[in-house]
This record gives sequence, C-alpha cells and structure tokens, in this order.
Amino acid sequence: MPPLRRIEVVLDSVKRLQRIGATANLLNLLQKQHPADIAEVLTDLSNGDRRSSFEVLLAGNARLAMEALSEIDPEVGEALLVDRPPDELAALLTELPSDDAAALVDHLPDELSAAVLELMRWKDAVEVQHLLEYEDQTAGRIMNPNVFALTEDVTAGEAIQALQTSREVEMVFYLYVVDARRHLVGVVSLRRLLLVSQETPLKRIMTVEMISARVDTDQEEVAREVANYNLLAIPVVDESNKLVGLITVDDVIDVIKDEATEDILRLAGVAADEHVFTSPLEAWRKRLPWLGVNLVTATLAALVVQGFQATVEEVVALAAFMTVVASMGGNAATQTLTVIVRGIALGELTWGNSSRALGKEALVGLGNGLVLGSAGALIAWVIVGNPYFGLILGLAMLINLLVAAVAATLIPIALRAINVDPALASSVFITTLTDVFGFFAFLGLATFFLQYF
Amino acid sequence: MPPLRRIEVVLDSVKRLQRIGATANLLNLLQKQHPADIAEVLTDLSNGDRRSSFEVLLAGNARLAMEALSEIDPEVGEALLVDRPPDELAALLTELPSDDAAALVDHLPDELSAAVLELMRWKDAVEVQHLLEYEDQTAGRIMNPNVFALTEDVTAGEAIQALQTSREVEMVFYLYVVDARRHLVGVVSLRRLLLVSQETPLKRIMTVEMISARVDTDQEEVAREVANYNLLAIPVVDESNKLVGLITVDDVIDVIKDEATEDILRLAGVAADEHVFTSPLEAWRKRLPWLGVNLVTATLAALVVQGFQATVEEVVALAAFMTVVASMGGNAATQTLTVIVRGIALGELTWGNSSRALGKEALVGLGNGLVLGSAGALIAWVIVGNPYFGLILGLAMLINLLVAAVAATLIPIALRAINVDPALASSVFITTLTDVFGFFAFLGLATFFLQYF
Repeated sequence: MPPLRRIEVVLDSVKRLQRIGATANLLNLLQKQHPADIAEVLTDLSNGDRRSSFEVLLAGNARLAMEALSEIDPEVGEALLVDRPPDELAALLTELPSDDAAALVDHLPDELSAAVLELMRWKDAVEVQHLLEYEDQTAGRIMNPNVFALTEDVTAGEAIQALQTSREVEMVFYLYVVDARRHLVGVVSLRRLLLVSQETPLKRIMTVEMISARVDTDQEEVAREVANYNLLAIPVVDESNKLVGLITVDDVIDVIKDEATEDILRLAGVAADEHVFTSPLEAWRKRLPWLGVNLVTATLAALVVQGFQATVEEVVALAAFMTVVASMGGNAATQTLTVIVRGIALGELTWGNSSRALGKEALVGLGNGLVLGSAGALIAWVIVGNPYFGLILGLAMLINLLVAAVAATLIPIALRAINVDPALASSVFITTLTDVFGFFAFLGLATFFLQYF
Repeated sequence: MPPLRRIEVVLDSVKRLQRIGATANLLNLLQKQHPADIAEVLTDLSNGDRRSSFEVLLAGNARLAMEALSEIDPEVGEALLVDRPPDELAALLTELPSDDAAALVDHLPDELSAAVLELMRWKDAVEVQHLLEYEDQTAGRIMNPNVFALTEDVTAGEAIQALQTSREVEMVFYLYVVDARRHLVGVVSLRRLLLVSQETPLKRIMTVEMISARVDTDQEEVAREVANYNLLAIPVVDESNKLVGLITVDDVIDVIKDEATEDILRLAGVAADEHVFTSPLEAWRKRLPWLGVNLVTATLAALVVQGFQATVEEVVALAAFMTVVASMGGNAATQTLTVIVRGIALGELTWGNSSRALGKEALVGLGNGLVLGSAGALIAWVIVGNPYFGLILGLAMLINLLVAAVAATLIPIALRAINVDPALASSVFITTLTDVFGFFAFLGLATFFLQYF
C-alpha cells in the first residue's frame, strides 16, 4: 500500500497544532476533513492527543465528531465515550443515524448503554433499541430503519412531493412500494419517477421482481448478494415480508472484504474474525486447536524419520538436509493451496474444469522441481562433498514438489465435493503429506543408495 | 461457503432440459434468471452444454445473453464468441454498455477485435475504442463514459426535464455539474433537485467539494477511495479536469475484494493477481523466486543442524524431533504474521498501538508454548523413553513459540516503518528465523544436557 500522502500531512499538522495549543486552527483543519479521514487521523494519534483532538472537534462540531467516531475501531471509540455522563452521550448519539448509533451503544458497558437509551429522545431510543434486538451480524442489525416507502396507489406526482417533504432519509435512490400493511411489493427508481406523467400510480411503474433480505439473514449472505447482483442497496423485510429497513452497499463493503479474506485466513489457521486487538484469550482459544493438530501430524512425520534411524546414524548429514526437502514441499504446497482454495471460493474452479487446474499445477510443480531440485543438488554436493548425496536430495525434492502440487490441488477439490470446508481442513492434510512424503522419499532413497556414501 | 441452493436447482434443470432437448423451456427458465446467476450456471456447465445453452439464450434474448457473458470469466466468455463473424459480434456488443463491451473486445484476438470495432455503429465503436486507449487497470478503462452532466446555469426544472429525455444513462443517482468546457465543478443529488424550486440554477445548489478520480488513477486506488469514503459512485476526469466518465461501486467490488486478499496471497508467496487458470508459465515465473529464496534459507537452517553433527550422531532421535520444534514455530508464526499483516493493511495497527499488539501476541505465544510444550514433552518421553529428552523438547518448543510470536509481530511492523512491503518480505525472514532458532534451541539444549541421555 503506498502511503496516503494527504492524510499524513493532516496528521502532522494535527500533532503540531496540538503541541502549540492552537485549538481554533485545529478545529478549522479537522472540520475540513471527511469523517473517514478524521477517523484515520484519530486512530494514528497517541492516546492523549486523540482525546484532546476529539474534545476540540466535539465542542466545535458535534455531528462531525460523532460521524468520525462511528468510522473508528469500536474499542478505540468506546474509550472516547465511556467517561461521559449518560445525558451528554444520549444527546451526542442523536446526531447519528440510528444504525450507527446502535453500533456505538452496543459497545458501551451494559449499565451505561441502558442509561443512555433511557435518556435518548423517545423516537431515537426506540429505533436504536429495535436494532439492538436483532442478532449480531444479521441484516437487521446493520440496516438503516429509515427507509422511504409509499403505498401502491400513490401517484408519481404525490411521490415526488412526499420525497420533497421527507426528512431523516439518509440516501434515497430507490423508492420502495408497500401495500396497506407495509408489505414490500415493488420498487421504483427515482429516475423512472421523473419520466412518467404525474398521475401514474406507483403500482403501474414499479418493478415487482427484486432482491430483498430478511432481518435474520446473515450479513455475509447480504454482502454476497449485493456483490453478486451488483446492487447499490437492498431492502430488508421482517418475517411477514414487511419492509423494515435498507442496507446500502457502503454498509457492507467491510463485510465483503472480510468474506474475501475468510478462506485464506482459515488456511493460515486463524479465525476469519480475528483482528489485531482480539483479546489474547480468545485468539489463543481459537489458534491452539490448529497448532494441536499440527503437533500430532509433526509427530507422525518425526516417526517416519525415527524409522530410518539406522540410515541417519550412518550418514548424519541426512538429518540436516531432510529439513530442506520438507520445507520446500511445504512452501510450494501452500502456494498451490492458496490459489486453489481461493479459486473455489470465487467459483472459478468447479468439478468440470478441475482437470485443467491439475494440469497447470502439475506443470508448475515439475518446473519448480527441475530448477530447484538441480540447485539443491548442487548446493548439497558442495556442502557435503558427495555427488550422490546431492543427486538423492535433488531427486527427493523433485518428487516431493510434484506430490505437493498434485495433492494441494486434489485434496481441496475432493473436500469441497464431500461438503467439507476446504480452507479449514486442507492445510493439515497437506503439511503432513509433504513432511511425511519428503522425509520418506529422501531417507528412503538414501537407504537404497547407502553403499555410495 | 454454504451451497447456493437455488442456483443448483437451476443448474440441474438446465442440464435436464438440455438432455431432453426442450429448447423453449430452457430459454424460458434462463430468461427468468439474473445475468449473474446465468453466468454462474454457464460456468458450471460442461463445454458442450455451455455453448448450446448460450446459443439458445442468444437467439431468444441477445441482450440478456450478452449481459450474462460480461459477468463470466473472460477466458470462458471469449471461447463463446471467437468463432462468430465480426458483423454478428459487432451487433451483439452494441447491446452492452460501452465499458462492458470494451472489456469483452479487449479479450478477443487482435484481428477479430479490430474487425469488430470497424463494424460497430460509429458512436459505440468510438466509445469502446476510447476506453481501450486507457491503460489496463486504470479508472479510464473501467469507467462508464455515459455520465449525465449539465452546466451550472441550468435550472433545477430544466435539469429534471433533461433527465426525462436522456437515454443511454445506465444509472443516475447524482447529477454532475460542469462548466462551459465540461470541467467538473460540482454535484447535485437527485433528491436535492426535487427539493428546490424549479427556477434555482444548479450553481446555487451544487456541492463543490467532492472526490473524483483521474483517468489514469489506478483502479485499486479508486476502489480504496470508494471503500474509505463510503461512495456509491465516483466521477472520472481527464488531465484537464474534464468530466469523462463515472464509476459506480458495483464496478469496483471485485477490485475491493482483490485488494483485501492481496497481502495474504503475497504472504503465501503467490502473486496477488494469480488465479486458478493463470498460464502455468506465468504462475511458475512468479512463484519460483519465492521458492528460490526459501531454498537458500532452508539451507541456512540445514547448516545449523550440520553444526550440531556430533550431538545428533550421539542421540539420533534428535534428528526426528527437531523437525517438530521447527514445524510448530513456523505454523504459530504464520498465524501471528497473517493477523499482523492484515491489521497493517486495514490500518488497525500503527506505531502508536504496536506495543499493545506485541503484548497480545507474546501472551498467546506463552499460552501456546506452555500447553503445546508440555504435550510435546510427554509425547517425546513416551516415544523415546527418556524424560530428559522430553523436557528438552518441551523447553525448546516453549522458547521457539515465544520467539515466533515476538518476531512475527515486530518484523512486519519494522518493515512497514522503513517502507518495505511487510507482506512480501516477512514470510522469508520469519520462516528462516523459526527454523534456525528452533534447531538451535533444541540441539543446543541437547548438547548442553548430553550427559543425561
């Protein structure tokens, strides 16, 4: 990532203005920034500077300060809020759309959030509380409940008037059409509204086939639909198909990003939702099992080596170079595995075209094996001083790189076919395989050709 | 990813209808699907079925067929187009918005694409050709040149009328305002247009501060801005700030996804743009250097083992179990590294809070070391039959897991500070370190306590 120059300039200026205590200039500078940029600057400041910059902005432009806060990492944001009296917090949260307010309230300590909800203006509090009643990570939790909807018999002209007088509507691109009991029945684009004569009822111009999400739909599913169908917004309905909210694509961009990285994080043995500041205990609890499995498989590989004890005793240099064979196989397998697992997730790789993928990976493995095996053979010959030793190492590397390529292609495809998550299970299989096979090939060949050492 | 049930049902039906030759039913079924779903179904079909399904759809609904085609993997799509006469292709491409048409033309063989451009309706061909003149992966290449813009002196009422009569505008959410020479000077939301009196000139209601991209801006930079600033669309200007196009968020969702995975792919030693069907030669060329570096570092680790030759000769079981120490360290380091590198990319991790991240990782490493070290000690004791051997293994594992955690946290942060891409360089450093340190700790301790074996 290239450095974002403009942000860094702003950051430096903020630090300088803080140091010389130029509060008015600081407020002036911050007010000119986008909330997302303010959030980035605040994150990069030291704890003390962050707090005082936030206070300056809050005093001068409370709405902007709160908007910036809702773009910030929740834990950092919470620290800037917790020590305020509940009535001040309630007033500040009212500055935000209720979905953003709900996200912040959700991160406050329980007593404080209860007190704050008590004190918020009745309408706002109800909205925020409603949102908090939905499960975490569902459409209901992330939607904006202020969705603009009109009934079917309203005319285009009336709809335009209604739009003109509505407030509190964050962004309107589509006009949703509901029946008398607020069931979602159609959608009209603003543009279409302008194109027809004023008397046309919405019923006649609305599109009835549309994609919607339910309040309990997982946010990842929402993100996937938004991405697949190139949507800019998706309406949210409750169990009885009543329209209750709207999710715009910018609200799920982060989810879309997380979804894209999920499989590769799992390949590395990390939970998809682990972040830098996940609590140590939680991170440990989720990483330990994976390492535990690895301990068992590494022990299996060690037992293979134990089986060749006699050979290793004879030529102790084998102990050193067997690690090279295993390490190369493991790394090459990781490369293939990453590409294959990602291809499965992106839908590029299916049963139908898997033989083509296998052909590609086998060719790459062969190429790697020939070049790296020759190089390894030369290196070992020079270090150990025995050409046969080099030859055996090179041959073992070639075999292991080929096995790694084929296994790292076929195992995830096979796991997928029997509905096991390939990202979760493949790594373990493949690491064991390349270790065991690498040791076996190298030490086996060495045992066979022992007479030449 | 859970199976997408509906798609699978559609896929099965398509296969069945193909088999019994029910063309009319097949067309009927396909016509009811979203282009993205058709694309997915086509991808999953065998080559023969894909081609005949596509022909059926093309004959019945050319526009939908072409829309589906532009959602498909370019290589697969190309195969469905190449053997058609240029004049048919030219007519088909005219069904698409020019940005999508350009992407398809770009994947045709050179002669064919020249012939097609020749034959397309003049206006469409010029647009497509213009887009193709911009560098691959820039804003200019992916933008839609049909952007709706009006001059500053136009009134709100005239603007609404202009919108009503305009055609070929893919999606209008914002109205861009330009001066007499088409320089971008402001933006008005459709909603605001409806709110003001008909006589107000756009100049009075437009927002002048807005984010725009230049034609030569890298598409990743565009994606980052769209994601950071929660934009739904971004206007594109040329070198002289003339408005030439528009990019909507759905056009960059895939770029946003790729950007998110880029660093983790690099960590695995894979180019960020490698896909399952990248040509073997290109994949090999990009993966080989990384494995080459790994050969050198693995050899270094082997030399460490060589240094302890005397000890290994004495107790040959050390050769087997040293691989366990190195393997555990390597895997734990990969976990930490993945989280840290991702945290840096997401902007969660900065110099300011890096000590907190270090504290977390050290704690996790300690926890892993205590549990896994004890387990490893027991296993080794049972297998080798010597409690001191187990003790030494456990101790070496504890030390190596701690070192892995600390190094995998500090090295990427330090690389970032000196402006080296942490994703690219960290893996190599850390693998070497955990191998070398693991062998050194285990064999060193063993040498020291050799008398107890």
